[in-house]
Amino acid sequence: MADALEQLKERLAEITDLGKVGRLLSWDQQTMMPLAGTGHRADQMATVYRLAHERFTAPAVGRLLEELRPLEESLDPDSDDAALIGVVRRDYEKAVNVPSSLRAAMTRAAAEARPVWVKAKAESDFASFLPSLERIVELKLEYVDCVADGAAERYDVLLDDYEPQTTTAEVRTLFEELKPPLVELIAELRQRDVDDSFLHADFPPERQRGLAHEVIDLFGHRPDSWRIDPTEHPFASGPGRDDIRITTNYHPDSLESLFSTMHEYGHGLYNHQLPQHLERLPTGQSCSLGIHESQSRLWENLVGRSLPFWRFFYPRLQVTYPEVFARVDLERFHAGIRTAKPGLIRIQADEVTYGMHVMLRFELEQDIVEGRVALRDLPQRWNEKMWDYLGVEVPDDGHGVLQDVHWSGGSIGYFSTYLIGTVASVQIWEAACRDVPDLEDQVGRGEFAPLREWLGEHVHALGRKFSPQETLRRATGSSLAAQPYLDYLRSTYA
Amino acid sequence: MADALEQLKERLAEITDLGKVGRLLSWDQQTMMPLAGTGHRADQMATVYRLAHERFTAPAVGRLLEELRPLEESLDPDSDDAALIGVVRRDYEKAVNVPSSLRAAMTRAAAEARPVWVKAKAESDFASFLPSLERIVELKLEYVDCVADGAAERYDVLLDDYEPQTTTAEVRTLFEELKPPLVELIAELRQRDVDDSFLHADFPPERQRGLAHEVIDLFGHRPDSWRIDPTEHPFASGPGRDDIRITTNYHPDSLESLFSTMHEYGHGLYNHQLPQHLERLPTGQSCSLGIHESQSRLWENLVGRSLPFWRFFYPRLQVTYPEVFARVDLERFHAGIRTAKPGLIRIQADEVTYGMHVMLRFELEQDIVEGRVALRDLPQRWNEKMWDYLGVEVPDDGHGVLQDVHWSGGSIGYFSTYLIGTVASVQIWEAACRDVPDLEDQVGRGEFAPLREWLGEHVHALGRKFSPQETLRRATGSSLAAQPYLDYLRSTYA
Repeated sequence: MADALEQLKERLAEITDLGKVGRLLSWDQQTMMPLAGTGHRADQMATVYRLAHERFTAPAVGRLLEELRPLEESLDPDSDDAALIGVVRRDYEKAVNVPSSLRAAMTRAAAEARPVWVKAKAESDFASFLPSLERIVELKLEYVDCVADGAAERYDVLLDDYEPQTTTAEVRTLFEELKPPLVELIAELRQRDVDDSFLHADFPPERQRGLAHEVIDLFGHRPDSWRIDPTEHPFASGPGRDDIRITTNYHPDSLESLFSTMHEYGHGLYNHQLPQHLERLPTGQSCSLGIHESQSRLWENLVGRSLPFWRFFYPRLQVTYPEVFARVDLERFHAGIRTAKPGLIRIQADEVTYGMHVMLRFELEQDIVEGRVALRDLPQRWNEKMWDYLGVEVPDDGHGVLQDVHWSGGSIGYFSTYLIGTVASVQIWEAACRDVPDLEDQVGRGEFAPLREWLGEHVHALGRKFSPQETLRRATGSSLAAQPYLDYLRSTYA
Repeated sequence: MADALEQLKERLAEITDLGKVGRLLSWDQQTMMPLAGTGHRADQMATVYRLAHERFTAPAVGRLLEELRPLEESLDPDSDDAALIGVVRRDYEKAVNVPSSLRAAMTRAAAEARPVWVKAKAESDFASFLPSLERIVELKLEYVDCVADGAAERYDVLLDDYEPQTTTAEVRTLFEELKPPLVELIAELRQRDVDDSFLHADFPPERQRGLAHEVIDLFGHRPDSWRIDPTEHPFASGPGRDDIRITTNYHPDSLESLFSTMHEYGHGLYNHQLPQHLERLPTGQSCSLGIHESQSRLWENLVGRSLPFWRFFYPRLQVTYPEVFARVDLERFHAGIRTAKPGLIRIQADEVTYGMHVMLRFELEQDIVEGRVALRDLPQRWNEKMWDYLGVEVPDDGHGVLQDVHWSGGSIGYFSTYLIGTVASVQIWEAACRDVPDLEDQVGRGEFAPLREWLGEHVHALGRKFSPQETLRRATGSSLAAQPYLDYLRSTYA
């Protein structure tokens, strides 16, 4: 039995390596690769993911899992090995229904669609992206057909890829609880007129770059394990816990990259503090995209928009951009970065309106999967919902339906994890504040080691051993709940 | 039979993809990866190369090759398919004797040794690198044991990995023909006193970078397919013909990076002009390292050190560094870059002394493989030979036995291809001059398209369909020969 477990771990190490290689290929495509390399990259990604899929769904893995059933049942369910066998069994039962050729076709379609999307977005030309999207959705629906057996809703299959063991119905319930108070709060705040004009000034990219490095130095990172690069759509990635790659976009007329760097730092720190002894096993990876997002939102919002943080850091910002901030005092600045104003772009949205952007996508994706909307009609449906939820008019598809990279990358079912994570970030922050009583004071002194360590111990070290809900429960003592998030928004914004 | 061929090609496409992924992993390690990522990278490389090796040496490949024997015999030997089956059969018969675990161990040892070597070189501390080198050599000898059957000399096995179908005896004969005239020419030139002090001035890296881009623009490249990055040891790589990555090192006190960029351009152009329709097959890759080096040396030396080129380009250099070159006329400059002076470092060596550096390594490697030298004695043997061949005294191992990256990367058997390629570059250049009568005038006008096209048609388009010797014969009408190279050196230097 020990031998079967070793064999399984050896194979999983290889598959985990391939996944990391795939992450590097994708990072490279988005930051370094000359554009003409797209065709090769599509081949390479398809090959790597097909091989990983083939190795994972080989009958040998099924046999090993069968053989390990008695061991699994005899072990403490919290033990590394019991968790591993459980996680792998679940993954295997899903993956084994998907042909390798379909897995490769999905990867290839995504790699090919990315540059098409980049161009279509830049030119605000949805029609030119439509054939790529049609191909991606066609393959995705084929995928759903393969694994939908037993799912209550077809969309469950896709959601589960990003937020395991979480159903569409659960998310719908959460979102329905959030929607009315959010709509109310947005309406209330819409009346206010806060001056945040200083956030739209001239911020030379070279100084933004310096500031981005300064803030991750302050939050804490090992320079021999991290890098930051510019890219179109910021993301965090990296082929291992000691090889963390975060990206940002230094827009010359906004401070966005500062907050996006804090955001990606949160993702990076999670990856960096995953359990070392499980590095090459599925249980040593991140738990879910929701838990991942809870980490990025915590650093971006709960830390990075807090008054204690800015008491400490605002002088640095003033020194960096004296021509903008010399005559803006801390209170005005802080009110500025806590302004809620409906806008077009999700990744620029404030904390209050953010949720509506996510709900819009969550609903549209379900419509796509259930065949309730034709893809060519997406721009119109998008624009209608933007008007209904946020009262904004979409001027063109580049600022509307084409704004996000996700669909071009084949990621359908992903968006709701942003809001799940945002909601969870408040619960996790409150738990950290309970355990580390002077946490806010520490933030005000620029001390982040205790927070990093608390997150490391209570969230990151769990890896993927447990479901997202169970991970949240262990970290906070509670299940995912709308109220703390709503209370936080109301207390900080209203 | 057609089906067997399709099956073989499909599997080869996958293996070729994995090889390209491996190249990207290595490029990334040398240019982008945070240092602490070394451990992950070793795992990832080992997994990718082990999988490629396993897929290639699977019994199914052997069966397909058997099945295809009658087809191969019925085809025109020059046809793509006949060449493919022949090349693959040869590779297969070698690879099938090597266990996957050994292949993975070799890859891992190399990935792990690289940072050890970087540090040891910087600190000139051979002892700290010795254990890594011992591990690499131990595995290499194990590898030789697996495949030496039928080889006249054990070193043949290693040479064949880089210069297929070329024996140690053939190289020895060539080198023995080169050695006495080279020694004589070096002695003769040693008497001369040419002023090249202006080549060791202050060259700000940012301007070097501009010049490097200018020269590859001039030689001709598609910016959407190429990139240049700084690295410690310059190299050319890239995961596909439309994704070319060359690197250089902008030393602030030398023009070395300009010539190294021309050199790597030659490698890059070869990769870029490999046959597109064979892109994912072994026959669509480069022929050998010797042929590869013939391309880099041709651009670096036959073009890049020629008087016609500098007639065109020297004004640009003068404009870039007026404080250095304003008062140096073209003739003095050109004599300066054609100075032959024994030195310590191979990659800084002039065209005349270069060969001796290679012969030294070729001889030492044979001593290692035949067990005629203990690895701990390598520095001493190195230093003795440097004195014997070039009359220079090695001050420390950083400038001696530790100077090259190759052994740390597991590349033993590689060095002689540098001299083979250098010799071939003269033959190829002369053939191009025969076919394109005003080639030197074109170079003098900064026109490189006809040369690129000639190389594309006569060398690059052949890919790996034929042996290096056969490729050279088809391109030039002659076999590899010492005399044209010796004549060229004498006529340009003496």
